[in-house]
Amino acid sequence: MGKAPGVSPLAPKTYPKIPEVAGLRLSTAAAGVKYKGRDDVLLAEMAAGTVLAGSFTRSETRAAPVLWCQDRLAELAKSPGRRKLGLIVNSGNANAFTGDNGVTAVAEIAGATAKALGTAKGRVLSASTGVIGEPLPSDRITAVLTDLTEKLAPGGFDAAARAIMTTDTYPKGVGRVVELDGVPVAISGIVKGSGMIAPDMATMLGFIFTDCAIAQPLLQATLSRLVGASFNAITVDSDTSTSDTVLLAATGKAPMPPILSRRDRRFANFEAALAQVMQDLALLVVRDGEGATKLVEISVTGAKTHRAAHRIAMAIANSPLVKTAIAGEDPNWGRIVMAVGKAGEAADRDRLAIRFGEIQVAEAGWVSPGYREEDGAAYMRRDEIEISVDVGIGQGEAKVWTCDLTKRYIEINADYRS
Amino acid sequence: MGKAPGVSPLAPKTYPKIPEVAGLRLSTAAAGVKYKGRDDVLLAEMAAGTVLAGSFTRSETRAAPVLWCQDRLAELAKSPGRRKLGLIVNSGNANAFTGDNGVTAVAEIAGATAKALGTAKGRVLSASTGVIGEPLPSDRITAVLTDLTEKLAPGGFDAAARAIMTTDTYPKGVGRVVELDGVPVAISGIVKGSGMIAPDMATMLGFIFTDCAIAQPLLQATLSRLVGASFNAITVDSDTSTSDTVLLAATGKAPMPPILSRRDRRFANFEAALAQVMQDLALLVVRDGEGATKLVEISVTGAKTHRAAHRIAMAIANSPLVKTAIAGEDPNWGRIVMAVGKAGEAADRDRLAIRFGEIQVAEAGWVSPGYREEDGAAYMRRDEIEISVDVGIGQGEAKVWTCDLTKRYIEINADYRS
Repeated sequence: MGKAPGVSPLAPKTYPKIPEVAGLRLSTAAAGVKYKGRDDVLLAEMAAGTVLAGSFTRSETRAAPVLWCQDRLAELAKSPGRRKLGLIVNSGNANAFTGDNGVTAVAEIAGATAKALGTAKGRVLSASTGVIGEPLPSDRITAVLTDLTEKLAPGGFDAAARAIMTTDTYPKGVGRVVELDGVPVAISGIVKGSGMIAPDMATMLGFIFTDCAIAQPLLQATLSRLVGASFNAITVDSDTSTSDTVLLAATGKAPMPPILSRRDRRFANFEAALAQVMQDLALLVVRDGEGATKLVEISVTGAKTHRAAHRIAMAIANSPLVKTAIAGEDPNWGRIVMAVGKAGEAADRDRLAIRFGEIQVAEAGWVSPGYREEDGAAYMRRDEIEISVDVGIGQGEAKVWTCDLTKRYIEINADYRS
Repeated sequence: MGKAPGVSPLAPKTYPKIPEVAGLRLSTAAAGVKYKGRDDVLLAEMAAGTVLAGSFTRSETRAAPVLWCQDRLAELAKSPGRRKLGLIVNSGNANAFTGDNGVTAVAEIAGATAKALGTAKGRVLSASTGVIGEPLPSDRITAVLTDLTEKLAPGGFDAAARAIMTTDTYPKGVGRVVELDGVPVAISGIVKGSGMIAPDMATMLGFIFTDCAIAQPLLQATLSRLVGASFNAITVDSDTSTSDTVLLAATGKAPMPPILSRRDRRFANFEAALAQVMQDLALLVVRDGEGATKLVEISVTGAKTHRAAHRIAMAIANSPLVKTAIAGEDPNWGRIVMAVGKAGEAADRDRLAIRFGEIQVAEAGWVSPGYREEDGAAYMRRDEIEISVDVGIGQGEAKVWTCDLTKRYIEINADYRS
């Protein structure tokens, strides 16, 4: 593939320039939290007037920074204030399952960051990713804050994406500019995976910034809706991190009157562009799934409801037997039938239809008359695979993305701490 | 380990003799359904008066033989009749997702078996395990029925266990004799796995026979209750077969008046012995999990309900990250915290306690003060591992068993059909 050794074979071939976002400045530094010889802390400064939205792991054992962010977002939604906002992120240590020490560490870091930025402690968000159960050396992070604030500058998404990497094999960021009534508005984001969505070195963190002027409740509602078809529609290994965090900040610095409601005619364009950025970021995570050699898109139609379609698609995407068959380039559609059956949603074996790309594999409860195993086998040798399942009983639809399950996944995760 | 090449390192070291069951005769034959040079069909003849109970996959895409058995059991419960019963099982082809042909094949095989045994078609049960989506060559099975009926004999559990194997690396059977008011009663069973509970070559089939005299409704209620702590408390890869079947037959040929109610003082002894046989059979399946090198017992206490405890235990047992850590002998308790969090059941991070065997690893939301990583690492090098989790919020308890997730699992399942 011509990629550097160790880089996922599914890594994108080009890294388009990520547009600057007015009202946002970024910087990174090497604090030595765990990694040596690389930046491991990201600071983001967001101009006064910025509004925030967030989406978090539903884990019952959420890490201290997640609880901190959830509390801050709730307070800011009630009392937005007008001072600037901060975001401080470290890699190498997730500050998860660290008891009271973890809570204290987040408060210390947020307090020091607020002081360095000249804002209130309650206006600083925090995220951490890395090993869990080890105390976070917060002093190493606070020690680089002066350096970080001095280096704050527009742009810098590539360095930011690198600073938050853990087992990621490439930095992940995308952005686009959308015209809203002739006003260019930037939406730029970074994300890190990669053994979705795992507790150690594979928490998913996503940070998206826009200079769009938009009301906070609408921003939150839009983010909450769009995660369903992006970050919540991807899976590498079905595990859920204690730290998964997606934050969306709108600085409002584009020269435009704010979008206050869904009925604003600019909203649809903004939403479509944001949806694309979020889906692109999500796919960058799947493409870097631990040990992945194939990107798999699973489309389910004909389920009873959209929710049922999503659950069936996820049952297929999370099935170790489906994922190992794909790794082995085996067009083993029987395993897809099995996964549909175990999803716990209504299905009718005798109406089920399955396609690999455009190849009709099964229909009406049995292998298609025209299907030839060699066609399926040839299709499975592709890097990117589309599996379509029609359940045949309703109108529910969903699409999710996953990767294959390979020996390399086992190597990475069996030997991770040694 | 001194085992034959290819046999699971967790295989039991001895195979105790399985006691004969009065009123039961078995035979096996080589029908060449798919395998060559080995027996692949099992016939069981159960004396007049035998009562049956069953437990089946909850898959929405159940195979034709499963639907057949469910219908037969429902009818026999209503109209027990007094003629003998039959059971015919083949390996190599699961007769699953084969459309109307599959239904026809089961009826043909049951009809021919009934004729050979001299009983009614509705009194013959059927099970199939092997590849799915390929038509079952029913004529190969009916062609050996004369041979099978001629060879019927008491005992023969070892040959029976071998005939139903697919990717199993060793035959699986256990039995015991329990005294009920001085009358010896045999309970003997066979089972096959092995990549629990998978659609191709890894359907779980279990057949248990006893000469106990017991009322059918009580037998069914007992089986239904005991599967929860045995066959439904094991998992290899979280996948659910289209064909999973457990049948329990009581011939009533032991010299005893029948047990008609739970209040019969003999019932508790019978139930305890049956529970032990079922748990032993279930563990034989886990020990032969595809690629398994470690047997893992997961005990959850302190959950809100027993059901919640079971779900938390299964979330741990099915987590690829927990299972790969165990494969790597890594005492990575952080992944257990993650799995508890994702189970979707109430938990309190700050009350969670984790033990590896007798080693207290974490308590009150953080690593235990006396825990040393080298102790955890030494424990993880064992073949059999016990993980205990106390959720700290209630009285719910559950125990489940699983195995580790290794590169060999990927090899077996990625290359299975090639």
